[in-house]
Amino acid sequence: MSILTAQALVAADLVAVEHLILRKVDSTYAPLAEALGGLVRSGGKRIRPTIVLLTAHLGSAQQQRQLLSLAAAVESLHTATLVHDDVIDGALLRRGQSTLNAVWTPGGTVLAGNYFFARAAALAAETEHPRVIKLFAETLGVIVDGELRQAFTARDWGQPKQSYYDRIYGKTAALFEVAARATAVLGDASPDAEESLRSYGYNLGMAFQIVDDILDFVADADVLGKPAGSDLRSGIITLPVYYFIQQPDQRDQLVALVDGQRSGDEVVAEAVQLIRQSDAIAQARAEAERFVGLAIADLSAFPTSLHREALSDIALYVVERRF
Amino acid sequence: MSILTAQALVAADLVAVEHLILRKVDSTYAPLAEALGGLVRSGGKRIRPTIVLLTAHLGSAQQQRQLLSLAAAVESLHTATLVHDDVIDGALLRRGQSTLNAVWTPGGTVLAGNYFFARAAALAAETEHPRVIKLFAETLGVIVDGELRQAFTARDWGQPKQSYYDRIYGKTAALFEVAARATAVLGDASPDAEESLRSYGYNLGMAFQIVDDILDFVADADVLGKPAGSDLRSGIITLPVYYFIQQPDQRDQLVALVDGQRSGDEVVAEAVQLIRQSDAIAQARAEAERFVGLAIADLSAFPTSLHREALSDIALYVVERRF
Repeated sequence: MSILTAQALVAADLVAVEHLILRKVDSTYAPLAEALGGLVRSGGKRIRPTIVLLTAHLGSAQQQRQLLSLAAAVESLHTATLVHDDVIDGALLRRGQSTLNAVWTPGGTVLAGNYFFARAAALAAETEHPRVIKLFAETLGVIVDGELRQAFTARDWGQPKQSYYDRIYGKTAALFEVAARATAVLGDASPDAEESLRSYGYNLGMAFQIVDDILDFVADADVLGKPAGSDLRSGIITLPVYYFIQQPDQRDQLVALVDGQRSGDEVVAEAVQLIRQSDAIAQARAEAERFVGLAIADLSAFPTSLHREALSDIALYVVERRF
Repeated sequence: MSILTAQALVAADLVAVEHLILRKVDSTYAPLAEALGGLVRSGGKRIRPTIVLLTAHLGSAQQQRQLLSLAAAVESLHTATLVHDDVIDGALLRRGQSTLNAVWTPGGTVLAGNYFFARAAALAAETEHPRVIKLFAETLGVIVDGELRQAFTARDWGQPKQSYYDRIYGKTAALFEVAARATAVLGDASPDAEESLRSYGYNLGMAFQIVDDILDFVADADVLGKPAGSDLRSGIITLPVYYFIQQPDQRDQLVALVDGQRSGDEVVAEAVQLIRQSDAIAQARAEAERFVGLAIADLSAFPTSLHREALSDIALYVVERRF
């Protein structure tokens, strides 16, 4: 089953989710509605709401309205962080389109991101489920904490692997985790089922971010839609970099290159080549595959079904994807 | 009763509120904890949490834990918007101290603001009261909408007065409103009492922002802690400007000045002088006093008490303050 086949199982619900996110957008100023609506419609692969919609079929029963609100809340929060990332990274390209930041002022970008934060909070509140709302609010804190950690650990070449894991948990895995876990909570799943789904979301999210960090080195800039090595440019130490600098000679080489006199595109391109040709990529990929294996194992707590198979296929897709 | 006397009634609770906001700050990176903690501790007059804590004494009974969470959520949200405003306005001074933006990158400022958004969401969720959480989430949407409107109506010299009122409702009054109203909801107040408190918060917030906008013209830059005319510099049409440009000759004068060839400090200083010497300030002040009168009238729904008197004094303070 491809990701498209997996998503086809919940295609109608995904359309409803998009409408929910945009419900308020259409009532604001026309030029703004266009810009905000464009951000949502162009937006990615909808993996996070797909997780919500598919896990809802694993044995527990949710109210459809609550489920759609949760899925839309998760995707809104993802959109908010994407938009703010454009200010935080100073990025100019994402998904091959101009980012908001390239057209808008930083202030406009902050407001656009806040708009999606506000939608996320409102949609989470619309579930009217206190524990789900609390989990969601806590996740927001974890996400912000992860981003702050990333900013504070840049260019710290001696940081342990756990520091990377803590950061990508906040940056990515926490939202995957709450997507699956909160769905279980909405459906009054047993504590064991809730834990299995939480763990599935966690492992899937960790794998997803590791693969993202690998693609930042190996993907064609054209396919990726942004320049290679963009994290390295900001001094962010991702898993391929971590493995690369465990070899003292490679570490000295990279630090000299990145902290040296020359700057900009040329240095990053050279560093990307070094890492791409090393064992670091394969080591990082092995870690991503380990997390995917754990995610698929988590699903074994549930009886076989088309929806369980789809969730398993999404996990496989996460390590196979090329962008 | 001065504002200090009014706040003395709830002084111990205000200390507890500050601890709640900072509870998570102290567990993050030390340099960050210092910066974020400084933002909270230096922070303003605590009017919003004071409203929560005082209105709780008007006949309804709240659980203390919920009340402190609500008060801390309201102040956290206020802090978040203040921090982001530094990016949105590009301001370099606020309250006479360097803003975060002057020291940090825009990205760091965005993250610091998001930190307080996350705290606000978590603290609101900790009330565990579904209607309060929903009101709070909706308020976040109204605030962001108000800021977006402000960005989109800059330099629109023909906008109606209602456009200004819509904007300051979102920017300021909505948070005052939810502070008073959510306290009523937490205390299971009657619908009439809830409406009276909502209205008190609304009217107080409207007056507060109008006075802020007057002070931007009449206060000494030293007392205000930021340069005069800062909104006008961004093309934001506040109430004094609105009244000023209702006179066609004054309007032509101001538009020629602001849209003319010269730019920067000199033009703003000249415009500030023109408006300061006109009737516009007195007209705006009369509006602020009208809202304060309505706020005090809203309190008449409750029996006289020390706490009701304190809320009334806060309303009087709002129009009398000089910074």
